[in-house]
Parts: sequence; C-alpha cells; structure tokens
Amino acid sequence: MSTDNKICETITMLGRNAFSAKFSLQKLSEAEKNKVLLKVADALVDSSDEILCANEKDIKKGEENGMHEGLLDRLRLSPERIKDMAEGIKQVADLPDPVGSVIDDWTLENGLRIKKVSVPLGVIGIIYESRPNVTADAFSLTFKSGNAVILKGGSDAFDSNMAITNVIRRTIEKEGYNPDFIQLVPFTDRSAVGELLKLREYIDVVIPRGSAGLIRMVCENSKIPVIETGSGNCHIYIDKAADISKAIPIIINAKTQRIGVCNAAESLVVHEDIKEAFLPELQKAMREKKVELRADEDSINLLPEAKPATETDFATEYLDYILSVKTVKSVDEAIEHINKYNTGHSESIITEDEVAANAFLKGVDAACVYVNTSTRFTDGFQFGFGAEIGISTQKLHARGPMGLKELTSYKYEITGDGQIRG
Amino acid sequence: MSTDNKICETITMLGRNAFSAKFSLQKLSEAEKNKVLLKVADALVDSSDEILCANEKDIKKGEENGMHEGLLDRLRLSPERIKDMAEGIKQVADLPDPVGSVIDDWTLENGLRIKKVSVPLGVIGIIYESRPNVTADAFSLTFKSGNAVILKGGSDAFDSNMAITNVIRRTIEKEGYNPDFIQLVPFTDRSAVGELLKLREYIDVVIPRGSAGLIRMVCENSKIPVIETGSGNCHIYIDKAADISKAIPIIINAKTQRIGVCNAAESLVVHEDIKEAFLPELQKAMREKKVELRADEDSINLLPEAKPATETDFATEYLDYILSVKTVKSVDEAIEHINKYNTGHSESIITEDEVAANAFLKGVDAACVYVNTSTRFTDGFQFGFGAEIGISTQKLHARGPMGLKELTSYKYEITGDGQIRG
Repeated sequence: MSTDNKICETITMLGRNAFSAKFSLQKLSEAEKNKVLLKVADALVDSSDEILCANEKDIKKGEENGMHEGLLDRLRLSPERIKDMAEGIKQVADLPDPVGSVIDDWTLENGLRIKKVSVPLGVIGIIYESRPNVTADAFSLTFKSGNAVILKGGSDAFDSNMAITNVIRRTIEKEGYNPDFIQLVPFTDRSAVGELLKLREYIDVVIPRGSAGLIRMVCENSKIPVIETGSGNCHIYIDKAADISKAIPIIINAKTQRIGVCNAAESLVVHEDIKEAFLPELQKAMREKKVELRADEDSINLLPEAKPATETDFATEYLDYILSVKTVKSVDEAIEHINKYNTGHSESIITEDEVAANAFLKGVDAACVYVNTSTRFTDGFQFGFGAEIGISTQKLHARGPMGLKELTSYKYEITGDGQIRG
Repeated sequence: MSTDNKICETITMLGRNAFSAKFSLQKLSEAEKNKVLLKVADALVDSSDEILCANEKDIKKGEENGMHEGLLDRLRLSPERIKDMAEGIKQVADLPDPVGSVIDDWTLENGLRIKKVSVPLGVIGIIYESRPNVTADAFSLTFKSGNAVILKGGSDAFDSNMAITNVIRRTIEKEGYNPDFIQLVPFTDRSAVGELLKLREYIDVVIPRGSAGLIRMVCENSKIPVIETGSGNCHIYIDKAADISKAIPIIINAKTQRIGVCNAAESLVVHEDIKEAFLPELQKAMREKKVELRADEDSINLLPEAKPATETDFATEYLDYILSVKTVKSVDEAIEHINKYNTGHSESIITEDEVAANAFLKGVDAACVYVNTSTRFTDGFQFGFGAEIGISTQKLHARGPMGLKELTSYKYEITGDGQIRG
C-alpha cells in the first residue's frame, strides 16, 4: 500500500473512531468529566520523565535542523512547564459545564413545549503548530465541553505531542472510557492535513491555531466548517478629543507588551486636529521602546524619525517593533480606513467624546471594539471565560475570544401529547 | 474578453458592491428599514405587470424545455402570488429588529465594561432554485437583519428573479439608499456559482436552498463559511410504551401531509415488543394513504404488503409515498440506528415512558428531537420565529429553523478609562 493510501486510510479511521466515541462521551456527567480531567492532570505530572524524554527528541531534531532559539524555547518542556499544563487542566475542571444549559424554553399555543438546550458540537479537529502544551489545553477544553477531538500538531513537536496524547489516552482508558475521546494524527506529512479536512462525514468543525499561512491553508482547503482564528491587524484611533495622557500608555501597552500576539496594535489612526500635540509625544514614547514608526504624508513632518508608510504598511500585521501612522479628518474617515484594512479582530478609540466613541463602537466591524483601553484585552482569560481555545475573526458561530461555551451547539427538545400539524 | 473572465469580473464587482453597501445598510434604524420593506411590498404589487411579463418568459422557456407541470406550477406567478409575496414582506417588517440586542453585559474587576451586542453578519450569499418568491423572501429577511445580500437564483426563474430584484432595487434607490443592498447574479452559467463561492473577502456566509445536490455542491466548493440546510432523513421511533392511538395519526401526518418536504418522516423504527400490536394498524393506515412500506426481516411477516428493506432504504430520503420499517430491541438500539442514518434534522419518539423519552431526547443527535408529536413541526413559522430562511442541519452557528436572529452575529463593545493589560 502506498504512503498516501495508508495516510488516507488511517485518517478516515481516526474520523470513524471519533464519531463513534462522541456518543459515549456525551453520556458522561459533569462529575465524571471532571474526575477524568483531574486524573489526567496528575498523570501528566507523574509521567514527566516519559514526556521530557520525547520532548528531548524533538529538541534535538530542532537543533539539527537549525531551528532558532525562540522556536526552540516554545518547543522545550520542563518539569515546571508540565506542572503548568496540569494546573491548566485542573482549572478547566473547575469551570462550569457548558453542556445542558436551557438557553430558551417556550410553549406554543398547540401545547408543544420547546426547549433549546446546549449540546456539544460533536467532533472537533484542531490543527496547530509548535507548542506542545496546546495538546493538553485543547484536550481539556474539548473534553469538558463534551467533544471528541482529533489533533494534528506541528511536525516539530511530534514526539512531545504523541507522548502527551498517550498519557491522556491511557488515563481515560484506566477510568473505563473510550480513549478515542482524544486522538493525534500519527503523521508528520502535510498531506495528512488535506485528508483530515475532507472528513465532513465525521468531523463537525475544524479550528486552526497558528500562523496566518496555516489558517489560510485550512480555510481554503477544508470541506468541514472552519472557525477562523488569529490574525490581527489591530488599530488604535486617536480622536481629536483624545486624552493624550491615556493614549500614550495604552499605545505602549498595545504595541510592546507582547510583540508577536494577534491582539497587539499594528497601526495608529490620528485625527489631524490633534496631531501637533500628540505626535511628538508618540515619537518620544516609541523611541524609548525602540518602535519604528512608518508615517503617512500628513504626519511624517511631525515624526522626524519615521519612515514613509505605503499602502502595504496599512495592510500588514507586523508582529514586530513597527507601528504605522495614518492621519484622518474625522471619526468617519477613521472608521472607513479601519474597516478597509482590519482583520476583524480588535480596534480601539481614544477619546473623551461620547458621540465619537459611540460612532466608533457601532461603525467599526470587528470582534472587539474598545474605548480608551488597550487592544491587548482580547483574550478569553481577560474576558473572564476561564479558558480560551482561540480568537475567532469570522462572524459565523463565534466571534472574538472563544471559551467553553463557544465549543457547544444546541438542539431543540420538543415535547407533545399527540399533536399533528394542521 | 472571454465569457469566463467576464463572469469572474462581474461577480467580483458584485462582492465589492455588497461589501461597501453593508456599511451604509448597518447605519439604518429599525424604522428606516421597516419603511423600505413596506415600500418594497407596495412596489411589487404595483409592478405586477412587469413581473408577470418576465415570468411569462420563464414559463414559456420551461414549456419549451419540457419542464413537468409540478415544476411549472412552482415557477408560475400570478397577481395573487405577488400579493402573497408582498404580504410576507410586510410580516417581516412587523418582526422585532434582531440587531442591537444586548446579549450579555458585565464589568471586569479592572473596571472594563463588556457588552456583547448582536450585529448583522455582513454580506450573505443565497443560492437557490426554481421558486421566484424566494427572491423577495430572502431580501426581506437579510435586509431586516441588516445584511446586504447577493442572490443566485435558478436559471429556470432567471427573468422572474431579475424583474423582482429590479423592482426592489428601484424602490431602495427611490428611498435614497444604495440599491446594492440586494444584487442578483446576472448569469445563468453554473460557473457563476463557482466564482461566487470564492469571494471570501467580501461575503461572510453562504446559504444554499434547494436540492440535496445543490447543497452538497455548495458545501464542497465554497471557500466562504456555509450554513448547510435541507436534507431530512427523519425517523419516528415507536417505543414499546407507545400509545398506538397517538402513533398512527402522527405517522400519517409526518409521512403524508406534504410528501416532498425535508421534515417529512422517511423511516419508522419499531420496538419488537410492540410490533404485533402496532404493525397491522400501520399497514392499514398506510394502505389507505397509498404509502408503500419497506420492512426489515423482523417486521415483514407482520406487513404482508411490504417489500423487503435494504441498507440503502434506511439511508434514503424518499420524498415520496414510501416508508421504511426497522425493528429494534431497545430504545438504545433505536437511538444508535437513528444516529447512524439520520441527517441531523428531525426525529420523534412515541412513548408514554418518561425514561425512554428522556433517553431519546438526550441521545439522538439532531436539530429537533420530538416526543409524541410530528416531525412536520420543524419550521420557523411553527416555532414562532415569524420567518424562516432555511433549516440548518449543521451544528456551527445555527441549528434547526433559522429566523432573523440566526442571520446575526455579535460583537463585543468594551469601554474603559485608560486601562492597560498588566
């Protein structure tokens, strides 16, 4: 049998296994699910040696392939990091069960009672890169929300992911349940992703987590519904009524607190009436933080250290110490500019003018729209969800930070006493 | 320029037009939207001659192509049918605006106030077949929910759809708004659908309405998120504790009230303990209604007029006067059979036993699960939504009957006073 055939056959089997496992998973009570999660957390710590040994292989391979230190650090596990992973799982056990909530409940004139009840999505496919702790994370969230999961991790972390998955599967089995609640695609070949994305019959939704390239590839190739996550070309608009003493710390926070994250700010939009007071302050702050400015024609004279900005700059998520600056004549022009270039993630206005704030809140098309605060707050933990599987930048199903609730669907349960339709 | 290039260019332009129109549409108040809807309703009636003349062309073409009478009837418009269309639009004007509802509202410890607010999806693509009244329907629902719409109707109804669209566009323009709130794809070529399904940049969601083949084609080819609607292989399970006097009228209703609809029953699952009492009654009722039975080995002896059922029967949505019969030994086996063959649409149990009813409600994986009533109730109007754009058989975003609310997404509006992330 050719490799491609083998991959296709194995992936289809994973799909069938997950489809069948989901029904027994959906029968577990909240207490049963939490017990499994706590056992898994303990088992991961108890199996640290096994996991670290597998991780060592991945690190070695990475070093041989010339992986740079930043990536090696993301890949590297330690007893501490395994403890953190276990801690994360215990926190998920503590969260309320998102399944079985009555979302709505009404009775029709004919006596039919309709209850709208939250249910698991079914089978979730998660395709991710690099960091092996995502394996444990993704399991805890999908399992707690009653979903079977098929994971496809990055090839760099293959052995680490496999070791973590094996510990989890063994623990589930020891508790008397079907280990196929979690399965890891046992291939590093890229074609395995293609096969996975065809399994519409078995998988209800695919969530890609990782680089913009990975996400685009999944969105373009999946036959299964996808929740698009990730890329954030986030703006901060400095209105003419902005309080500059609020604006500067917010910009520093949004741009520099963590440079490589999707909720970091990439572009400033500045009202021309405030540019003379604001831009010199901005230049000073960005100089201190070593942030390069790229400014449009109307602002560059006030930013002597800036380079000229091109259209490409406005469309770029730098994920770097670079910030573009665009000047506008009104809040409406700011909204229009942002709606043209943003990725539907997080946008903020700095203003003391309630009218401008409301126009911005209503007019900007993004998952999270902020007034007088940092875009960095777009995060499931910051929002109080207690967990985060990703940040959706699409409008279907879920938008913005996704916690446990966003991993559920619903069904209608309708009870009658012999009613027929007239 | 080749035809294909022209199609591609025109479709891309429709996408850009809709994308740009959606922002002005989203600024309309509820009152402004309702005013437009009422004007459109009147304009359709006032333009009956123009619409009927276009419809006559479609009918003629259909007759020339040998279209059978059932389809011609679906295609044919009359002054009455145009009045019904207008009436439907007026009813949508009367429904509450689904946009701007505060779904959730909380304040974090750091003082940030988070409001989760319903918003339009943006741009919706609707791909449908045959009946021209869908054009007016789809417009009223997408417009009321604040969405720009791109319609691709069936080629059979091309002139009718174009006439209806033109009347709507003229009315919108006369009211001083952008007519691109509604656009119809001006091609009958199938390749136009393919081009439309690529416009991920401009269209937020595609909803196919029509045959199983059309829906599958859209799901398999779309780069844009799809809401799958439609096919219903619906079951009724006759539990051992069923009240047969309820079961028979429910089966007659679910099977025969309208034969070609997705919420019609296609298969019975019968507990073996009740088969001797139940099946002869079933045979009698189905004989009267001219329904052919296809029975498994364990039931065929009690159904002398039935043909033997194959696996294919259990997987078939007949949309015809045919009903399959499967015997099971328990409610669990019934649930397992249904979860294997159903399409996630509507399933019903007939029982007086609350334990069996609850097991069925929880265990069956479908949008609508019923106790002691007909599957025919799966319908936005029956559910009291006042409208229906389709019935979703997927779990992402919306499941079951979709009304106005299901045509919205949400955004988070977050207000602070200088907060930064620590």
